[in-house]
Amino acid sequence: MAVRKIKLIVQYDGSGYRGWQVQPGEKTIQAALVEAVSSLIGRKTFVHGASRTDSGVHSLGQTALFETDSPIPTENFRDAINDRLPQDIVVTEATEASRKFDLISGPTNKLYRYTIYTGQLRPVMKINQCWHLPANLDIEAMQNAAKLIPGRKDFKSFASAKDKRETTVRTVFKCNVTAEENSVFIDVEGNGFLYNMVRNIVGTLVEIGIGRWEPDRITEIIEAKDRTAAGRLAPPNGLCLMWIKYD
Amino acid sequence: MAVRKIKLIVQYDGSGYRGWQVQPGEKTIQAALVEAVSSLIGRKTFVHGASRTDSGVHSLGQTALFETDSPIPTENFRDAINDRLPQDIVVTEATEASRKFDLISGPTNKLYRYTIYTGQLRPVMKINQCWHLPANLDIEAMQNAAKLIPGRKDFKSFASAKDKRETTVRTVFKCNVTAEENSVFIDVEGNGFLYNMVRNIVGTLVEIGIGRWEPDRITEIIEAKDRTAAGRLAPPNGLCLMWIKYD
Repeated sequence: MAVRKIKLIVQYDGSGYRGWQVQPGEKTIQAALVEAVSSLIGRKTFVHGASRTDSGVHSLGQTALFETDSPIPTENFRDAINDRLPQDIVVTEATEASRKFDLISGPTNKLYRYTIYTGQLRPVMKINQCWHLPANLDIEAMQNAAKLIPGRKDFKSFASAKDKRETTVRTVFKCNVTAEENSVFIDVEGNGFLYNMVRNIVGTLVEIGIGRWEPDRITEIIEAKDRTAAGRLAPPNGLCLMWIKYD
Repeated sequence: MAVRKIKLIVQYDGSGYRGWQVQPGEKTIQAALVEAVSSLIGRKTFVHGASRTDSGVHSLGQTALFETDSPIPTENFRDAINDRLPQDIVVTEATEASRKFDLISGPTNKLYRYTIYTGQLRPVMKINQCWHLPANLDIEAMQNAAKLIPGRKDFKSFASAKDKRETTVRTVFKCNVTAEENSVFIDVEGNGFLYNMVRNIVGTLVEIGIGRWEPDRITEIIEAKDRTAAGRLAPPNGLCLMWIKYD
């Protein structure tokens, strides 16, 4: 039987996990998927992910892939895998990808959403899905700052020192700040992200929102190409990978 | 210093707890409050609750009470207790109650809301805050059935066998079923509830919603005064205590 590539769209509440990537002795999303898929197919089957989301980070649109020569019909994979996954992980789509499909270098666009809850009292029902920051944020200042982010730029100032990739140039297509009652959403769309890049952008926009920095400080920060120029790292639980687009 | 009665409104995500009530060796909401209040006041202080919510049940309006001769000003309690509570519990109000205030027999009205999620795929971001029941529920049938519940009646058929209270007569003021996208909400308002009563009502309404029973079966069930007449017990995680009213 020819080997098939099965592509999955995966949603998860990352609160109870040490991130996406398999790590010995740790509960991870990838490990849960490997276990579910392997148990279904009846042989150890590795599941690759397009984004290595961090500990506590969520997804509504992670893309994953496994190869198999199993005769299971493609349309049966979704529900059969879901039956074997924990309740806080779900596969929303399982389709057969073309043999040329490239999970890692194929994406042309990804969207991350970061949620800040600014009400004075913590929202217990979604405390793991936001950054609770009881502050009066200047949304207009944050919006003006966010406008200075998009473009093909060297985002080294927003990369974690742990990021060892060769180039820190990325293209950000959109960076939008919206507010709704006690929530502030920061949507960042780009062709790829450096390690901790979105959380560093959020931390920086918050410094501007609380009035510590002026909006145009963003330009200086990007030009500095120095991690210490940017704001603090926003906590992981406010972050959600919304979708990944392929050509 | 005279003893004061401090009344708290408490919200919690009950997912990680073995219910409200203190139990040796178990993580409970009440235990977390006793610990927080005792640590603040500097002496062991018991915290009473108006409703003993079950394991996995949530609250947006539990009412709790403690007595103290501490000189801490009333307006400082809320934030000081919150600083000592886990992130999934929050006190939204702390006020001084009159000496006559009766936490247990004082309530005149309580509202519970039950949430059913009927979408085919489980909602990972709120999986602990709903009953995931991927079914096509007949909302109108459920509404017609729900109308037959209110009144001062013997609700023995909806009580758990574990409920040992003398009378099973209670007054239900309202039982409403509403639907919104993939969610169905069942709101039950009454002057008091038997053990598992709301979850048994929900389980029964679901039997009607899936078409197994006709709406007027409700009347027969109530008249039977027999627990085995009603539907299955709905899972705890869909249930939330919304508020408790006192005169």
